[in-house]
Amino acid sequence: MSRPKPLSGFPEFLPAGRFVENRVLDVVRTTFELHGFAPIETRALEPLDQLARKGEIDKEIYVVRRLHAEAGDADELGLHFDLTVPFARYVLENSGHLVFPFRRYQVQKVWRGERPQEGRYREFTQADIDIVGQGDLAAHHDVEIPLVALDVFEKLHKDLGLPPVQLHVNNRKLSEGFYRGLGVEDTAAVLQRVDKYDKIGPDAVVELLTEDLSLSQTQARACVSLAGISATDESFVDAVRALGVGSDLLDTGLEELAALIRVARRSVPDRVVADLKIARGLDYYTGTVYETVLVGSEKLGSVASGGRYDSLASDGKTTFPGVGYSFGITRILAPLIGQKKLVASRSVPSAVLVAVDNEESREQAIAVAAQLRGRGIAVEVAPKADKFGKQIRYAERRGIPYVWFGAGHDDSVKDIRSGDQVPASPQEWMPPAEDLHVTVGPAD
Amino acid sequence: MSRPKPLSGFPEFLPAGRFVENRVLDVVRTTFELHGFAPIETRALEPLDQLARKGEIDKEIYVVRRLHAEAGDADELGLHFDLTVPFARYVLENSGHLVFPFRRYQVQKVWRGERPQEGRYREFTQADIDIVGQGDLAAHHDVEIPLVALDVFEKLHKDLGLPPVQLHVNNRKLSEGFYRGLGVEDTAAVLQRVDKYDKIGPDAVVELLTEDLSLSQTQARACVSLAGISATDESFVDAVRALGVGSDLLDTGLEELAALIRVARRSVPDRVVADLKIARGLDYYTGTVYETVLVGSEKLGSVASGGRYDSLASDGKTTFPGVGYSFGITRILAPLIGQKKLVASRSVPSAVLVAVDNEESREQAIAVAAQLRGRGIAVEVAPKADKFGKQIRYAERRGIPYVWFGAGHDDSVKDIRSGDQVPASPQEWMPPAEDLHVTVGPAD
Repeated sequence: MSRPKPLSGFPEFLPAGRFVENRVLDVVRTTFELHGFAPIETRALEPLDQLARKGEIDKEIYVVRRLHAEAGDADELGLHFDLTVPFARYVLENSGHLVFPFRRYQVQKVWRGERPQEGRYREFTQADIDIVGQGDLAAHHDVEIPLVALDVFEKLHKDLGLPPVQLHVNNRKLSEGFYRGLGVEDTAAVLQRVDKYDKIGPDAVVELLTEDLSLSQTQARACVSLAGISATDESFVDAVRALGVGSDLLDTGLEELAALIRVARRSVPDRVVADLKIARGLDYYTGTVYETVLVGSEKLGSVASGGRYDSLASDGKTTFPGVGYSFGITRILAPLIGQKKLVASRSVPSAVLVAVDNEESREQAIAVAAQLRGRGIAVEVAPKADKFGKQIRYAERRGIPYVWFGAGHDDSVKDIRSGDQVPASPQEWMPPAEDLHVTVGPAD
Repeated sequence: MSRPKPLSGFPEFLPAGRFVENRVLDVVRTTFELHGFAPIETRALEPLDQLARKGEIDKEIYVVRRLHAEAGDADELGLHFDLTVPFARYVLENSGHLVFPFRRYQVQKVWRGERPQEGRYREFTQADIDIVGQGDLAAHHDVEIPLVALDVFEKLHKDLGLPPVQLHVNNRKLSEGFYRGLGVEDTAAVLQRVDKYDKIGPDAVVELLTEDLSLSQTQARACVSLAGISATDESFVDAVRALGVGSDLLDTGLEELAALIRVARRSVPDRVVADLKIARGLDYYTGTVYETVLVGSEKLGSVASGGRYDSLASDGKTTFPGVGYSFGITRILAPLIGQKKLVASRSVPSAVLVAVDNEESREQAIAVAAQLRGRGIAVEVAPKADKFGKQIRYAERRGIPYVWFGAGHDDSVKDIRSGDQVPASPQEWMPPAEDLHVTVGPAD
């Protein structure tokens, strides 16, 4: 066949890019486990009727059937478009075997048939954490989730050189309680319009609220003032109080959000912002909501988001409330890898190439390679017996930093960057830590 | 919704099972990298015409389309049914950016619409390694592949308690050269019948060869005698020679297989068997072929297999020969996990539960947890402020071995299995290595 072309919306990386992704995923998974989240993986396919239950998203589903499906085959299936729907099903299916609150993480591909564009993919990797209760789930878990998220993002920033993040947080109870305190009934309609704040500006929102929803100028101005409040500390509480509106629900929302900001701020100052104009997802979530932007790449939109839902799942008798957060791994990494902003130190795992003088001595080279591997050093044996210079050029082309000569009879190892060559024993020699494994960091 | 039922053929694990799978995959990936294989991941979907090119398998393909596909949408897509077809496409697509011989590994789900049964799944995980040349690829790479496979399987056996394996090896050149030496033309037809050796026995194979293919009794007996030869050392060469048949192709085949057995035997004695009746896949592969059985679970059939193909891919101008090997991860693990033969030490990552005396002290508990995590210890904070005994019972139910009391003011840690409680500092205390991480091993 002739050279195939990439499929739009299905990003694939060269090995060096995959090293970057793997390293990031290692940090993500390790940090999730440090916070007590257990790993699960769900099948890629769910019954179509389960996937299609949520009105809006059904356009984007990929339907799956056997090429030679027969009459009477089981119901149609679809590829999951997120990890929440399959997780809710998993919780119901296995609730008798799980201990609640159940803390799980899940790192998998998801598929959406939407039109590919900058930052939107048809196949992409998500990394989700959720804490799910049986019957109830304490509010302090809403405070816990951003601590996990920040722990992950701060490590990615400090250890691997990803951009820092800002985590924007709101609480549906706060917004809804405020609108009710103003005497507004249809709070969802208000939220919908406040959601356009960034796009059309505060004055246009006031216009929408007064014209579409017949709010008074005072009510509309108050809604817009609330949306304009943001702070990296608890001062947002006073700013809301200063608007002179009160309700029990508002008090609960303020209290929950203030606790979150207070604790998160102590863990990592200035990364978490109470941002009262965040409305997206508020029809789905029932309390705290999270959005996250990469500093310097704000135009990508939120790269990681989540929130509290009072009913993740229900079997009719028991309801399972949850709070969760989803990292858009591909959305974060595809631009950084594609633009070579985040790079791997080499595109092969091998730290050493064991040279082969002639084919008769290949078995000695294999034996030396096995000894080095037994000590944790990644090694390739040269594919072709060749002269000194050619072996070095071969290693150079692959990005392998060391070449091992005289395997088994006159062992020495050469750092092909400096040219230094020293006698070495396969039982003892170790490359410096920065050469032992592929490292990942920002391009210089 | 009511409790959902599992989908037949789509295995999913509880967290403890996923810990087992992850641990196994860690060993697999780490060992691949020690041997210089670089990671890649390909999209799950390929153009249907590419997937369907191989006649036999097209029944099993899952076709994928958008629920609301429009006229003029791109060609139909299907889920990949192995990792070889997508890899061949990836090599052609990216050949200008790869250095050859290209060594890659790939661990991903694949999908086949076949009828689910014992050991057969509709969704399962494979772990593949391949070495691919541009134009040519030396024969010694056929020797290298089983060394990698054995390195993986021996670690899984010794470190995690999986059953040991036997790797059965044959070479198409050997069989084909032998048949030609006998004066047989249609060597593929002979192989097809010899393939039934295990099922129907040698006499029935002789009957097939003489009746279907009009081989003489002498020819047929010789073919069956060849198929009967197996050895864990190079003695198989003499056994073949003793049959008195000769050809150049046979010589090449014998030489290649003998080199493989000699080197593999030195690395791990008695795990590799020259088994001259292996015919499966010989129409696809062009040289060495590998099959692998778990000792004690031979009825599962081959759980890992591969071989040499002279043309993995071709763009019309350049041909890419390869040799590869595929581990059937799900096929190996699903029975071991399902029957609880291979188990995790606990089903949560957490080594420590930090108790909370009352909700006012939760922030101190969070601070202690952060300190412990900073030192690599997985920790959960108790979801509910509760009495001493209840905290211990909660940890017990989750399988968390240690409970931390008096966070931030009177710190002590209790091993809830022994009951030992000692004063401890969150900057210094470390659990013993066997409790620090979830461990995986055979059930006692």
